[in-house]
Amino acid sequence: MKKIPRKIFLPEEQIPSQWYNLRADMKNKPAPMLNPATLKPVEIGDITPVFCEELAKQELDGETRLFDVPGEIMDMYGIYRPSPLIRAYNLEKRLGTPAKIYFKYEGNNTSGSHKLNSAVAQAYYAKKQGLSGLTTETGAGQWGTALSEACAYFGLELDVYMVKVSYEQKPYRKAVMRTFGANVIASPSDTTQIGRKILAGDPDDRGSLGCAISEAVERAVTSPGGSRRYVLGSVLNQVLLHQSIVGLETEAAFKIIGEYPDIIVGCAGGGSNLGGLIAPFMRDKLNGKASPRVIAVEPASCPSLTRGKYAYDFCDTGKITPLSKMYTLGCEFKPSANHAGGLRYHGMAPILSQLYADGYMEAVAYEQTSVFEAAVTFAECETILPAPESAHAVRGAVDEALKCRESGEEKTILFGLTGTGYFDMTAYSSYLDGDMTDRVPSDEDLEKGFEKLPAV
Amino acid sequence: MKKIPRKIFLPEEQIPSQWYNLRADMKNKPAPMLNPATLKPVEIGDITPVFCEELAKQELDGETRLFDVPGEIMDMYGIYRPSPLIRAYNLEKRLGTPAKIYFKYEGNNTSGSHKLNSAVAQAYYAKKQGLSGLTTETGAGQWGTALSEACAYFGLELDVYMVKVSYEQKPYRKAVMRTFGANVIASPSDTTQIGRKILAGDPDDRGSLGCAISEAVERAVTSPGGSRRYVLGSVLNQVLLHQSIVGLETEAAFKIIGEYPDIIVGCAGGGSNLGGLIAPFMRDKLNGKASPRVIAVEPASCPSLTRGKYAYDFCDTGKITPLSKMYTLGCEFKPSANHAGGLRYHGMAPILSQLYADGYMEAVAYEQTSVFEAAVTFAECETILPAPESAHAVRGAVDEALKCRESGEEKTILFGLTGTGYFDMTAYSSYLDGDMTDRVPSDEDLEKGFEKLPAV
Repeated sequence: MKKIPRKIFLPEEQIPSQWYNLRADMKNKPAPMLNPATLKPVEIGDITPVFCEELAKQELDGETRLFDVPGEIMDMYGIYRPSPLIRAYNLEKRLGTPAKIYFKYEGNNTSGSHKLNSAVAQAYYAKKQGLSGLTTETGAGQWGTALSEACAYFGLELDVYMVKVSYEQKPYRKAVMRTFGANVIASPSDTTQIGRKILAGDPDDRGSLGCAISEAVERAVTSPGGSRRYVLGSVLNQVLLHQSIVGLETEAAFKIIGEYPDIIVGCAGGGSNLGGLIAPFMRDKLNGKASPRVIAVEPASCPSLTRGKYAYDFCDTGKITPLSKMYTLGCEFKPSANHAGGLRYHGMAPILSQLYADGYMEAVAYEQTSVFEAAVTFAECETILPAPESAHAVRGAVDEALKCRESGEEKTILFGLTGTGYFDMTAYSSYLDGDMTDRVPSDEDLEKGFEKLPAV
Repeated sequence: MKKIPRKIFLPEEQIPSQWYNLRADMKNKPAPMLNPATLKPVEIGDITPVFCEELAKQELDGETRLFDVPGEIMDMYGIYRPSPLIRAYNLEKRLGTPAKIYFKYEGNNTSGSHKLNSAVAQAYYAKKQGLSGLTTETGAGQWGTALSEACAYFGLELDVYMVKVSYEQKPYRKAVMRTFGANVIASPSDTTQIGRKILAGDPDDRGSLGCAISEAVERAVTSPGGSRRYVLGSVLNQVLLHQSIVGLETEAAFKIIGEYPDIIVGCAGGGSNLGGLIAPFMRDKLNGKASPRVIAVEPASCPSLTRGKYAYDFCDTGKITPLSKMYTLGCEFKPSANHAGGLRYHGMAPILSQLYADGYMEAVAYEQTSVFEAAVTFAECETILPAPESAHAVRGAVDEALKCRESGEEKTILFGLTGTGYFDMTAYSSYLDGDMTDRVPSDEDLEKGFEKLPAV
C-alpha cells in the first residue's frame, strides 16, 4: 500500500474557486438580523452604510449555494493557499492512539492565521466599490494583521481599533500591522463618541472586543462622504462564507487520499474558523450523506455555547449594531483578566448557533492551563507552535484521540490549526513558569449579563 | 501556454534523500582546519570531543559527493519540507521589471528559518551516538529555536547560550526555546570559565556570537562523562552539507518548470543559507555546465567578505576552537550596537570563502535602512514579513531586478528567503519610526582586528 503522505497540498489549480454558503442547505435558517429600533429584519439599505454592498448582499443571502470567488481574490489566495492538510503522525504516536489525526494548517502566512481568507475578500470588495479605506477592531491581533496585509495589497487605508489590553501586551502585533501600513488605535480611545463615553465612565477601562467594534463602526459610518466601511473578522454570515474555502480545500484533500473525518474539532470564538472548516462536512450531515461528529471547543472563561443563552443580542458593547440571534453571554461580557487564550467574543456566529440549537454540533469548554498543556505537547511532536486559540482545538482533538485509545477505535479526527503563537509568548511563558491560572465566570455573573439582553 | 504556478511544491517523494557536498567538486578545496597549538591540520580525534563522530567525519570529508540522509531525518524533514519555490509576481509588477524573480521560502516552520535543516541532522547524530544532550549558541535566536525543536523531537537536553543583548531584547525568542524544553542562558554567563573571565573584565559585556560559541564549546567538552557535544548552526562544512537540501529542492523545482537561474542572491552571515542554496548551481558552475552569477549579500556593519581578510582565524572569541581559513574581521569583532539585522558573525564559511577567493562568487554589503526598506516593500507585495537577515537577500534581488528594468533584460533571479521576522518587530518599529540609523566600521577599527589575527 502506498504510504499516505504526511502533508497533502492540493495542486494550485484545485484551489476552490467558489465559496460555499452553508445557509443554503439549512432547513432552519439562522434567524435574521433585526433593526434594534423597529425589531424588524434588516434590509440591505439598513446595512450598506456599514458594510460594502457586495458584502451586505452576501450577509443577507441565505439561498445562493455557491458564490464565485473573483479573480483578484483568487490571485491573492494563490500567494498563500492552498494550505496543507497534515497527518499528525508524531502526535498519534505520542498519544498511543489508533485514531488518525489530521489537521488543516492555516498558519503559513504572515498574518499567521485563517483570518486572511476573509480579509482578502472584504478588502477586495471595498476597493471595487471605490472606497478609500476600512475600519475594524482586533483583539489578539490576528484579524487586524490579516486585514492590514489585505489592505496593503489592495491599496486601502485602514484604522484598527485594538483592544487596549492587547495593544499594551502585544507591541509586536501592533508593529506588524504598522509594517503593513495600518493605523492602530488603542480602544477605548478618544477618537469616537463611544470611546470617550466609556473613558469618561472609567479612564482605566482596558477595552473589549465589543467596545472596539463599536468604535470601528462609528468611525466608518461617520467617515467623510461615506468613504469608509466597517469590516469584521468573525461572527458574520459573510465571514463564514469566505472561510468555507478552508473546509472545501480540506474536503478535496481528503478525497485525494480517500478519507473522510469521523470527528471534526474546531476552536470557537466568534465562529469564523469552525464555520469555515466544517462547511462541506456539515452540508453532508444536513443532507443525510454523512454523519461526522462536530465539536466546537471554547474557553471555559468565555463559554458562549456551553453556558450562554440563545437569544437576540447586540454584536457590540456600545449597542449600535443590529441585533443577532446567537448564543451569547451578553454584549457587556468580558472574560476575566487572566484569560490568555483569545476567543473572547461574547457571542457565537448565528449560523453555528442555529446548528448547535438544532443538535448538529456539540460544544465543550476547557480551562486554559489544560489548553496550553496540549499546545506544548503538540509543538514538541509536530514542531508547530499553535496560537492559543488554535490550541483549544488541539486539546479537543487530543481528548478524542485518547478516547479512541481507550475504546480501540480507529477514528479519523480532523481539527483546524488556525494559526501560530509567535505573538503569544507571554502567555506561553506564564504557562511554563507555572504562573498561569484558570478562572471561569460564576453563574451569578452570567445571570447579570442575561438580564440585560434586549427584550425581543 | 500553461501559466507557471505561483508556488512550486515538490511532491513529497521528491524531497532529496541525499545531501550534496560541494567540496567534492571544488578544485581548490577549502583550507583544512588547523590545531592552534601545532598549526597542523586537525585530525578526527582532535575534534570528536567537541563534535559527534558522524558530524566530525562529514566536517573533514572533502571528497564524498553525496551523503544519504538517514530515514529518521527524512521523517522530520517530511514534517516541514518541501519548502516552496515562489514566483514573486507582485514584486515584479511593483518594480516594473522584466526580470523573473523567484524565492525559495524556508520560513514555513516554527523555527521560522532554514536553520532547522541542519539542527535536525545534528540532533539526530547526537541521539544516535547515545549522548544525553547538546550545547550551542544563538544570536538572533533562529538557530537556537531550530535546535530546540530538533532536540525536543529526538528527546535530547539542550543548553543554549544566547548573546546577552539578544536575550534581553528578545524575551519571546527565549520563550519559544523554553517551550521546546531548552535551557537558555544569557552569554557571557557565570556558568563557564570563559564567561566568568569576560565578566570579570567587563561586568556589563553584552556578549557576541564568538563569546557564546566559546561558552557552549567549553560546556560541551567539560560535560560529565563526555555526555554532551557542541553544535553550530553555520560556518562549518557539515552545516553547508545539510543545507544543500535547500538548493537541491530548488534545482528540482526549477526543472519542473523548465527554468534555471541567471542570478542567485543569498544573505550571508556565517554562510549556512547561501552555501546551501547555491550548492547544485555552483556545482554546475564549477563543472562548466552553467554560469549563474552568485551574489552574497552582507550587512555593511559586519562586512566579512567585502572588507575582511582571507586568513586563518579562530571561530570564537575565546580562542578555544581550531583555526579556520576564512574571510574574517577578526574573532573579537562586534558589529555596532545599533545593528539590528542579524548576520553578525565575524567570519565566513571556509567553503564560501574559497569560492569567493577563486572568483566564483560576488559580494555586496548594504546598510540596514536600505535593507528594511526592501523588506517592507516585499511584505506589502508578497504578504510575507522577512527576517532582517533574509531582507538582505531581498535588497540584493530587488537591485538586480531594477538593473534589468534599466537594461530590459528578462533575467531569472533566484533569492533565498530564509525566514520570517516575527521576533524582530522591535527593529521593524525602529525603521518605521525613522529611528533606525546606519553605522559601518571604520578602516582603523578593522585594521585593529586584522592585527590580532593569529600568525599562521
